[in-house]
Amino acid sequence: MYKETQTIRAIQDSLRDQDNSAFLKIINQTHHADLAEIFQNLNELQKKLFISKSGANRFAKVISELPNTIIEETLEKFNDPDLSIILDNLSDDDRVDIIQDVSCALKNKLLDLLEPKDIEITKSLLNYGEDTAGGRMTTSFGNVGQNLTVKEALDILRESQSNSETLARVYVTNSQGELVGRLRIRDLAFNNWDTPVREIYRPCKHTILATADQEEAALMFSKYDLIVLPVIDEQNKLLGIITYDDALEIIEEESTEDIERMAGMTGDTSEQTYLNTTLTTHFKRRFPWLLGLAFLAIASGFVMLQFEQLLSELFILALFLPMVVAAGGNTGGQASTMVIRAMALGELNHGTTLRVVWKELRLGILLGSLLGACMALTTIFITPLIYPDLPNSISFPKLGIAVAIALTAQITTSTLVGSLLPIGARKAKIDPAVIAAPAITTIVDVSGMIIYFITAKIIIF
Amino acid sequence: MYKETQTIRAIQDSLRDQDNSAFLKIINQTHHADLAEIFQNLNELQKKLFISKSGANRFAKVISELPNTIIEETLEKFNDPDLSIILDNLSDDDRVDIIQDVSCALKNKLLDLLEPKDIEITKSLLNYGEDTAGGRMTTSFGNVGQNLTVKEALDILRESQSNSETLARVYVTNSQGELVGRLRIRDLAFNNWDTPVREIYRPCKHTILATADQEEAALMFSKYDLIVLPVIDEQNKLLGIITYDDALEIIEEESTEDIERMAGMTGDTSEQTYLNTTLTTHFKRRFPWLLGLAFLAIASGFVMLQFEQLLSELFILALFLPMVVAAGGNTGGQASTMVIRAMALGELNHGTTLRVVWKELRLGILLGSLLGACMALTTIFITPLIYPDLPNSISFPKLGIAVAIALTAQITTSTLVGSLLPIGARKAKIDPAVIAAPAITTIVDVSGMIIYFITAKIIIF
Repeated sequence: MYKETQTIRAIQDSLRDQDNSAFLKIINQTHHADLAEIFQNLNELQKKLFISKSGANRFAKVISELPNTIIEETLEKFNDPDLSIILDNLSDDDRVDIIQDVSCALKNKLLDLLEPKDIEITKSLLNYGEDTAGGRMTTSFGNVGQNLTVKEALDILRESQSNSETLARVYVTNSQGELVGRLRIRDLAFNNWDTPVREIYRPCKHTILATADQEEAALMFSKYDLIVLPVIDEQNKLLGIITYDDALEIIEEESTEDIERMAGMTGDTSEQTYLNTTLTTHFKRRFPWLLGLAFLAIASGFVMLQFEQLLSELFILALFLPMVVAAGGNTGGQASTMVIRAMALGELNHGTTLRVVWKELRLGILLGSLLGACMALTTIFITPLIYPDLPNSISFPKLGIAVAIALTAQITTSTLVGSLLPIGARKAKIDPAVIAAPAITTIVDVSGMIIYFITAKIIIF
Repeated sequence: MYKETQTIRAIQDSLRDQDNSAFLKIINQTHHADLAEIFQNLNELQKKLFISKSGANRFAKVISELPNTIIEETLEKFNDPDLSIILDNLSDDDRVDIIQDVSCALKNKLLDLLEPKDIEITKSLLNYGEDTAGGRMTTSFGNVGQNLTVKEALDILRESQSNSETLARVYVTNSQGELVGRLRIRDLAFNNWDTPVREIYRPCKHTILATADQEEAALMFSKYDLIVLPVIDEQNKLLGIITYDDALEIIEEESTEDIERMAGMTGDTSEQTYLNTTLTTHFKRRFPWLLGLAFLAIASGFVMLQFEQLLSELFILALFLPMVVAAGGNTGGQASTMVIRAMALGELNHGTTLRVVWKELRLGILLGSLLGACMALTTIFITPLIYPDLPNSISFPKLGIAVAIALTAQITTSTLVGSLLPIGARKAKIDPAVIAAPAITTIVDVSGMIIYFITAKIIIF
């Protein structure tokens, strides 16, 4: 943190003093991820100076680290020849990411500015959905034919070195471009130069189809500790690779998306950051859920209206009403969170539904009865101090028992609803994270009101 | 999925038929992460057979992939000599992870069973906290002195190959063991054998102190796209490395922990999975929050009691009460989720509090007034159909305006509470995720009741 503040200040000083050599010295020493962070904190004038002094060539790496929301406005500060240079200097997966995320007009302009050599590959990558393995892959990777010797393979790799995103894994293909195996540089370095590649490559155990979901790719990285995952088509032709840093990014994105859906937010998270997201976008992502939930919540109010008579006869019931209702929301929220997270991490597969139900049912009864007992004691011993006068024929123990029974019923219902709704959502091909805390809270609010008033009516009168 | 079910069945068949060669063939072909998953789904008898047939040597890799909750019971199935073999076959970071997570009795037993060569390194790694960079690192890495030639370096690395977790990065140290730089195998492979290492190594830009938090290490991996991060002490002495697969694991763990805290669950997540966690553990993690929140919710009931008079005069107010209260919980939950996640991803640093407040304040007013307008219209046009008879001198438009104003006030308050409480928590060194949706919902329930009844009283009467 301290070091970063220092770097920002040094960059700002060098821009103000027009000290080019100081400026270039700092940006050459600073990682492009740090430069992207610093760039976002500059004012408009400083941003313009930063761009003109660093030049399109150097700025390409910085732009790939900027959040989506400000990429478009940043690109608009460049003239066409500079945009060409930037596009040329981006790795092909970053290039496609950027083109996918800008407005349609800018997208077409950028496609026109591509270098001839990049056109075909960029267009073919754009055909894959943004959230698929193909949409994430890069086509720059170490690739050698199976008929070469170690020496020939090393020569090819040395030349392709600067164009390959990583040489941590080198892939071996046959003359049809089909994937036959993989090598590590050390397999080449530790072997004799005249050994044929076909004698030393190993089989590729893990591959992914270009059309598969990016989340599936990320789960494979974390399960098998992969560093590179080759992407193939249905004919086993090697199309590209996904690297471990993409997997990190996918996992962060997907977790953020789940967390936000669970809190009732719509839309795509992508790489937007909180502060860089506009007020309108924040508004659009939150409002639809709020409106829907508000109408649902009126159902709770409608239930209350039906029990006007009961409440007017025994208004002390109001003291425990919010508690019984809220306890359902809280337990339902806990249950749904556990289940949704377990599904996201690939744990709950088909056939485990019954085990989940059995677990949550027992847990609901356990949590409900213990919480019910605590609240019965509170009712019996503490309520008389706040609200001493009950109508005739009604006693505090009776009230306590009603509260305890209602609480047990409400919590048991809620854990079941909370765990089953996300599983049901997945079966209906809806993202389970959408059926999370807010929706469940509002649903069990209604059931809680009904359970509470009916229990009270039966037990007390 | 399909393939996995097939493998499970094949393993079960070979165990039932006592067909050793078929069994060994399958487990040699299957990744240890898959074997760990399959093992968990076997019954007790099958588990025993699996262990005895695979042998301690092969089982070491499987055990490192099992969830913490079943590691202890699995280790107890082995005799002491086999435990020694397992410990010897684990990488040093996995060994320490396991020893840290078992009961005290088993921990002491395992420490006694360590091979003499592993004792010192294991005990020194155990000194670092489980959630620190030191607690995550491995001490098996490629390391060469700066005075060697390329040929000598390659010879050393070839020999240490099997003991190194990764050779993706090789670290160069001076005679005091201080980190001076790094190499990739390709730098050695692409250079002449007599080139001195000191001429080709590069500086190490990113390092982490052994005492730093593991989350800091994970953020560095994702920001700088690292593959290996060297861990040093305060004297710049190289102690070990953290690899990209640890970073993936840390990010998954920390996201799960945040998600669970946000839903009001206590305790440590670690590597436990939903189905493998016992009922008692689930209960213990959920109950404390539920109990605390239940007592807090009684405060809402207490507010209702104070407005008994108002409610009895104008019971239609009950129709909108749950809606106004819940809207606060929902917006507060959204705001806190956005802020907590932005903090977890390292976005909100000191000095951004005012920007967050300003954003959420405007957003709260915007969301509140628009939702208020929708609900005012609902009150004016739809309520008369449900509840036509209002007391004299009270009109539906008046009621609608009261609902709209209360809703705007409640939502604005809630977005502010929802965004400021997590920031305040962090300032007070409390995990912000703890002050998430459930706590905020319950707090703004109370404020919502007060706001609603007071607004209604002022506007309507």
